Amino acid sequence: MKIYGFALAPNPRRLRIFVAEKGLNIPSEEVSLFEGQNRTPEMLAKNPTGGLPFMELDDGSHLSESVAICRYLEGLHPEPNLFGKDNREQAEIEMWNRRMELNLFSAVGRVFQHTNELFKGRIKQFPEYGATQRETVEQQFKWLDDQIGNKPFIAGNRFTIADITAEVAVDFGEFAGVKYDPTLKNLARWHKSVASRPSAKA
Amino acid sequence: MKIYGFALAPNPRRLRIFVAEKGLNIPSEEVSLFEGQNRTPEMLAKNPTGGLPFMELDDGSHLSESVAICRYLEGLHPEPNLFGKDNREQAEIEMWNRRMELNLFSAVGRVFQHTNELFKGRIKQFPEYGATQRETVEQQFKWLDDQIGNKPFIAGNRFTIADITAEVAVDFGEFAGVKYDPTLKNLARWHKSVASRPSAKA
Repeated sequence: MKIYGFALAPNPRRLRIFVAEKGLNIPSEEVSLFEGQNRTPEMLAKNPTGGLPFMELDDGSHLSESVAICRYLEGLHPEPNLFGKDNREQAEIEMWNRRMELNLFSAVGRVFQHTNELFKGRIKQFPEYGATQRETVEQQFKWLDDQIGNKPFIAGNRFTIADITAEVAVDFGEFAGVKYDPTLKNLARWHKSVASRPSAKA
Repeated sequence: MKIYGFALAPNPRRLRIFVAEKGLNIPSEEVSLFEGQNRTPEMLAKNPTGGLPFMELDDGSHLSESVAICRYLEGLHPEPNLFGKDNREQAEIEMWNRRMELNLFSAVGRVFQHTNELFKGRIKQFPEYGATQRETVEQQFKWLDDQIGNKPFIAGNRFTIADITAEVAVDFGEFAGVKYDPTLKNLARWHKSVASRPSAKA
């Protein structure tokens, strides 16, 4: 088993945090997105989207999409549980993971793509559109602060994949230049808590 | 059990197709997105994102996010299987479902939001950005045609949640004014096949 990733990108980090939380040690290879190493014919044969991370399994097949890889690893190594223990809890965690991915993480990505120098020339940037996405992220931070309330974690009483997605989104947001207002006490408390876990350094 | 949905929106349709494929009959209530019925205090208490669909369970709790609801229903009614039978197949299907959702369905949504009259005044539209998203959708159609190749379905040999997501994305794309080139023979064959299933009318 081997992971292909890239240190600076958020989706590979999501998988690294997951692997660290599981206590696993999986060999990895760095594929530079900056140098386009993800788009060589050899790499596209392994993951035709060109995305990272992806994983090579022991049978020689490949699996991509960070959450699909995480769920596969959960099946092989059920503890500590990060996707839910029964059908109802699994659905609740998936709901929260999707909210964090589709409403927060994706919006952070659009801020980055449309306002950051790194994307100049890679896509047609619309900085004004990026500014609206920044407002969306700020609204999501407020919404999330309200939703967290007194809960210790995003999906309830324990750390799950939804916390990992949110943590990666918040940290990538800071890199992209959009940070939560520290007066959002619940969000700040949650972020401090997840950032203090050893997996945050993965 | 009760589903809150909206006939014209793609995510509620995704759930309706899933329910039809499972052969289930679940009562539903229409919530008009046009009239903002999804944003009343009563509805926001059931789903605080304001999104549709969501489901009321028999214990009075609520579950939202179409794929989370589908997975929950799969747990209650495992056959016909739409999410994968073992860990490896589940991961493969999730990979394909995410590709269809994040790379195709989401881009179709952005075309719609930034170019359709229905979104005028609801968000700040950037038609030029919408045009780039139309190009993205067209590239995704070509990519998908190549990936489907001779396979009967998106994730391989049988109909799964990944086909439902792709089907809803393609049909919503047509509504949003972006249609696949009919010379994309594999995509056209696949689309004809899924569109002929009884569930397509759900």
